[in-house]
Amino acid sequence: MTATGSDTAFGLLSAEGGVLAPAGFTAAGVAAGIKRSGKPDLAIIDAGAPVPAAAVFTRNSMAAPPVAVSREAISDGALRAWVVNAGNANACTGPAGRRDAEEMAALAAAALGCVPSDIAVASTGVIGVPLPMDALRAGIPQAAAALGTGPDADRAAAEAIMTTDTFAKSAARSVRTAAGEIYTVGGIAKGSGMIQPDMATMLAFLTTDAPLSPAACDRALRSAVGLTFNRITVDGDTSTNDTAALMASGAAAGAPIELGDPRLDAVTSALHAVCAELARAIVRDGEGATKLVSVTVRGAASAPDAEDAARTIANSPLFKTALFGKDANWGRVAMAIGNSSARIDPGRVGIVFAGIVTCERGMAVPFSEEEAAAALAASDVEVVVDLGLGDAEATVLTCDLSYEYVRINGEYRT
Amino acid sequence: MTATGSDTAFGLLSAEGGVLAPAGFTAAGVAAGIKRSGKPDLAIIDAGAPVPAAAVFTRNSMAAPPVAVSREAISDGALRAWVVNAGNANACTGPAGRRDAEEMAALAAAALGCVPSDIAVASTGVIGVPLPMDALRAGIPQAAAALGTGPDADRAAAEAIMTTDTFAKSAARSVRTAAGEIYTVGGIAKGSGMIQPDMATMLAFLTTDAPLSPAACDRALRSAVGLTFNRITVDGDTSTNDTAALMASGAAAGAPIELGDPRLDAVTSALHAVCAELARAIVRDGEGATKLVSVTVRGAASAPDAEDAARTIANSPLFKTALFGKDANWGRVAMAIGNSSARIDPGRVGIVFAGIVTCERGMAVPFSEEEAAAALAASDVEVVVDLGLGDAEATVLTCDLSYEYVRINGEYRT
Repeated sequence: MTATGSDTAFGLLSAEGGVLAPAGFTAAGVAAGIKRSGKPDLAIIDAGAPVPAAAVFTRNSMAAPPVAVSREAISDGALRAWVVNAGNANACTGPAGRRDAEEMAALAAAALGCVPSDIAVASTGVIGVPLPMDALRAGIPQAAAALGTGPDADRAAAEAIMTTDTFAKSAARSVRTAAGEIYTVGGIAKGSGMIQPDMATMLAFLTTDAPLSPAACDRALRSAVGLTFNRITVDGDTSTNDTAALMASGAAAGAPIELGDPRLDAVTSALHAVCAELARAIVRDGEGATKLVSVTVRGAASAPDAEDAARTIANSPLFKTALFGKDANWGRVAMAIGNSSARIDPGRVGIVFAGIVTCERGMAVPFSEEEAAAALAASDVEVVVDLGLGDAEATVLTCDLSYEYVRINGEYRT
Repeated sequence: MTATGSDTAFGLLSAEGGVLAPAGFTAAGVAAGIKRSGKPDLAIIDAGAPVPAAAVFTRNSMAAPPVAVSREAISDGALRAWVVNAGNANACTGPAGRRDAEEMAALAAAALGCVPSDIAVASTGVIGVPLPMDALRAGIPQAAAALGTGPDADRAAAEAIMTTDTFAKSAARSVRTAAGEIYTVGGIAKGSGMIQPDMATMLAFLTTDAPLSPAACDRALRSAVGLTFNRITVDGDTSTNDTAALMASGAAAGAPIELGDPRLDAVTSALHAVCAELARAIVRDGEGATKLVSVTVRGAASAPDAEDAARTIANSPLFKTALFGKDANWGRVAMAIGNSSARIDPGRVGIVFAGIVTCERGMAVPFSEEEAAAALAASDVEVVVDLGLGDAEATVLTCDLSYEYVRINGEYRT
């Protein structure tokens, strides 16, 4: 079991597609000429009218202009559409970058027939380079004209937000409430670490047809993101553009869902499952990753202790290179927890590495190296640490650190 | 100029050797059979009688038994000798490990003719494996019998504490006080990251013939370590065994030096220079390192801001891989400072990468990629960030992240 969760708690139903799985949305992805490769690089996700919405953004203090513009757009709890470009992050671009992000929203508003404050914007790609506004001036009306429903439009949007992702990332789930309503949550995401040539970004756009209020949107999003996207790490670096956003069309049946409504728990459960699937896809697509690694710390004295210890292990280059080397090097796990802020009693620490007990009460336990090498040959590996002090637990997903990571990130930028 | 310092402030004099450069010490390094390779693995540094001493230890909460034993030995501010083994860290070894560390001190005390509480111990190497006490029972008397002065003994001690270090690390400086006394500080160190097969360690043993009091020892050591060994990083991981220690023989002329004595500043200056040279040697010998990288953050609102921003840059895998790729990727520097705890005004940030202005007021400055590639071909690279907010400054030394780092740390432990 990982903190990124089970589908069974609320009897979730599988669902096809991504951001268009819930009713009430259209989407498009087009090639606007922002990427030099000529691949799709501009997406719009449109609710057709302002709907309840929420978003969480990077906490990086060098946050890019589109983050600032979107923060303002969503401050009233409603949005009509997201317009997203890949190939240029519009970061470290100063006041001109701010004007460009505002124009991007204005262009989408003109094309969709709404006011700019109903539009949020996101950008990902190269930094320190001005947005190619001519491409956006032509591309945004083109994308707006292409808005549609169905699998092709859904996939086109997922593909248009990719940078060095090696595959598009979509997920959807439905949930049946006790009263019999069926609500669907869908989403698309991109991200595979901080990417050559500059910085990459995790972007996730989530939709639901549940009639959530703005406050319910916000609560559901923060709850799901906290245990999914915020519990993954590829290299411990946080982009200037990270964004995860939810729009609720209300196209499904039922009375509005406010805070405290038990149906909100059901929708949150579906949202959690969708975010967990997207988060796992991001780590699996981590730069150079050969393994998806789940690090669980249990028996911690407090929840922050559990999370910090798990995160410190998951970000340790020594731990990550050992995994690449298929080495059950539990000493590096012991070192990492000792460096975390968690309270530790060395005499109580237990470490299970890929199913093999390697350390008990802070001391080595003899194990078969052959058995360990076989267990570590798998593409999914679990490391579990028991601090033996309390009952708090946290799981962080990470990947290994390979030659390929160094190659991808060490290549000349030019 | 870096925070790891200038030799000019106190008119320091160069000096030959390492831990035996100051008068009043003997040393030895022997092969006791702890390392499978048969290389030297046991050192003693002996002041001949208890002398004022100080030490700082790892803050890792999984600190190894020898750290605990040495903390107690030094609690009275005096030590006669350090006994140090390489090849086995005596970490994660539980109560038996504690007994072994105590026996190591008792063996040295018996061989030298003193009480065990006059002896401090340090261990570095593989973790989770009991110390081979038979090797130590034979080796410690052998090392005690070999104690001597001169370059050979000095070098033997430096070599016996190495693990995967590719070269031995020694440094010495003398300083002339205003009253005309000449005091010498010397030292040896080991460390090159956290090392295969398990965890490595930074160990530094420093000596001086200045007549420092225990409190003066402690003050000088903490001052020097804070700006040198504590300002380097290879991979952001802290070992369970890190130790830096100073012994003051008082063999040079002059009245005892207490806190507040201006001569303490002179000795501290020499100690600072010795520690800086040893710290630079450790980073240059960093696992897989091809470059020594100095990261300076100036213009910070506070000293902790400057240090945290510099450290966050220096530990970013994206920054380190870019250096390996000879890429003036200033966007990753911007990303890293944004992730630090430092107060940042994005519109004031300036970044000079290997002497090339790449970012001013938070925005890209066009530069010649050819010029940048040429500047980054050097083995020593400086990155300077100006936050434009205040006058605090800090420098952290790091190295690049190469294929070789992944190879060294990803190899099978067995």
